[in-house]
Amino acid sequence: MKTRTGLKLSDVGEFGFIARLARTFNQRLSENVTGIGDDCAVLPWKGDWKLLVTTDLLLDGVHFLKEKIEPTDLGYKALAVNLSDLAAMGGEPLWAFLSIALPAETELAWADRFFSGWKSLSEKTQVKLLGGDTTRTTASMVINVAVLGKAREKYIKYRSGARPEDLVAVTGELGSSEGGLRLLLKKELKDLRGPAEKSLLRRHFRPRPQLQEGFFLAHQPQVGAMMDVSDGLDSDLRRIMERSGTGAEVYLEKLPVSPALKRCSQQYGWRLEEVAAAGGEDYCLLITVRPEGYSDLDRHYRQKFGRSLYPVGRITSKKGKLIYLQAGQPVILQKSGFDHFKI
Amino acid sequence: MKTRTGLKLSDVGEFGFIARLARTFNQRLSENVTGIGDDCAVLPWKGDWKLLVTTDLLLDGVHFLKEKIEPTDLGYKALAVNLSDLAAMGGEPLWAFLSIALPAETELAWADRFFSGWKSLSEKTQVKLLGGDTTRTTASMVINVAVLGKAREKYIKYRSGARPEDLVAVTGELGSSEGGLRLLLKKELKDLRGPAEKSLLRRHFRPRPQLQEGFFLAHQPQVGAMMDVSDGLDSDLRRIMERSGTGAEVYLEKLPVSPALKRCSQQYGWRLEEVAAAGGEDYCLLITVRPEGYSDLDRHYRQKFGRSLYPVGRITSKKGKLIYLQAGQPVILQKSGFDHFKI
Repeated sequence: MKTRTGLKLSDVGEFGFIARLARTFNQRLSENVTGIGDDCAVLPWKGDWKLLVTTDLLLDGVHFLKEKIEPTDLGYKALAVNLSDLAAMGGEPLWAFLSIALPAETELAWADRFFSGWKSLSEKTQVKLLGGDTTRTTASMVINVAVLGKAREKYIKYRSGARPEDLVAVTGELGSSEGGLRLLLKKELKDLRGPAEKSLLRRHFRPRPQLQEGFFLAHQPQVGAMMDVSDGLDSDLRRIMERSGTGAEVYLEKLPVSPALKRCSQQYGWRLEEVAAAGGEDYCLLITVRPEGYSDLDRHYRQKFGRSLYPVGRITSKKGKLIYLQAGQPVILQKSGFDHFKI
Repeated sequence: MKTRTGLKLSDVGEFGFIARLARTFNQRLSENVTGIGDDCAVLPWKGDWKLLVTTDLLLDGVHFLKEKIEPTDLGYKALAVNLSDLAAMGGEPLWAFLSIALPAETELAWADRFFSGWKSLSEKTQVKLLGGDTTRTTASMVINVAVLGKAREKYIKYRSGARPEDLVAVTGELGSSEGGLRLLLKKELKDLRGPAEKSLLRRHFRPRPQLQEGFFLAHQPQVGAMMDVSDGLDSDLRRIMERSGTGAEVYLEKLPVSPALKRCSQQYGWRLEEVAAAGGEDYCLLITVRPEGYSDLDRHYRQKFGRSLYPVGRITSKKGKLIYLQAGQPVILQKSGFDHFKI
């Protein structure tokens, strides 16, 4: 690759950088391996089973604030965000690998609590910790988790599966985790004792990876594309558009938001639709659904999970165009999703 | 786990911490999975093939110094140290995952050179980059690499395979990488232009993962235990002793050292045996060999690779005792291998 002198990562952003990498490295993959660009890599395993692999890097000061998160929550969340990537392709978790760098003065009691939080989720989801790497750090804490899972080849959903006219739906409320993060950055934990505040903080600290939902949705032929909402609906839907060669429109008044987020948005002066559309880390699932199959799918989903899908938009053929509508009128959203190099 | 209040990671060290983790997590692994405590985890794959997984975390300021390493060398080495873990169990590499956190002001040209170093090794070893995670960091650079490889079940060597009376051998010279590191910490790169200095620096920056050697040795029934020399012979041999329930003795005068290391040890006043026995990151292989099969093994090895194995010691039945001998007399070594929490 030739690079204009002085060009910095912040000039191209995370997604620009990943696109460069994909161009460099994706050229010679064999046909039965899918690489960079989806929630997980898909590798050959036994017979028609595929092995799914995902990995996430979490840094103190970027992805979490050590002084503002309980070690049990951090241990839980480090695993949860990876399981969410598996859920996004319909995978069942098998094994995890944890690399962790801790300052040498870290108390063992802190580490024990981290692992008790991890275990509370790993036992529930039956994922086994098989190894990793531990090291000291002279700077801030670093956590990298890799998770392996399995899925049958024909029941894996990709980001590239969307088609024009598909409906866009999510499986959970949007923006609550972002609300929790905003509270956290504003105040001390001890000053956040109201029920709405506590609810948003819990969504931020304890996202539930939607493994059952992902597994179910992956088995439904009406579902086109699937991914998890990690960087925010705005950013994540653009990934589906890119991989599927489509556009999309989103109806702002249809974005599902929790009562707690409504209350806090009023109280703290947040723009509710902006938080819901651009806030990251909800870790629910984002799907596109063939329009003729939507009502059947929603009925089966309700029977199984006791709640509906939330339809929030539509896939269009206008490649690369994401349009927000409010009462049928196009509006411009202030803030777009999280990009890890643009600060 | 119950923990005495105030106990810190530095009080138990990296290996104490890993032992705690292994106790917490290894209880319920199924029989066809091997977890924490070897160079790689061993997972079921197709038929009698196993999937090997290893992961390594590299931090600026701990494992490398960004200002003192060329980005091409760093990209090469980040992959090399993981391939060495595969080599240590006899594995053939397949796929890699890279998580990298870079400061937003990093130049794209720097990143391109990092990836060109990575590629120079990944193409030679046919390992495909399938994914990972990229993020900005407000602190120092972080790299985590995970590598997956394959091996036939019956040709995997473990750390637990040593028996009393086995000979201990290594496949390469010891201490050169540590010599390179000492030079690096002492001087600027531009002041290290002598041939001996350049040779040690190259050993430090460009360790060769011994994949062919590891594959060959894993297929030989005379080989008992195998691992790679990453933390230093002293530290790594103790890992084999622990997993095999044995002791060992090492003959200091037999430790293979390069002419460059000899020259620099004289010039800079290093204790040669100490550097060779305790210096890390040589990434050659450490094996134990049934004594009756050693000469056959060495002959085959020489035929295949054009050089001998280096016998350096013997496994004993004195559980946990590592004894150094010089001219037949026990000596005490000053410095033991690298422990990531003890600073």
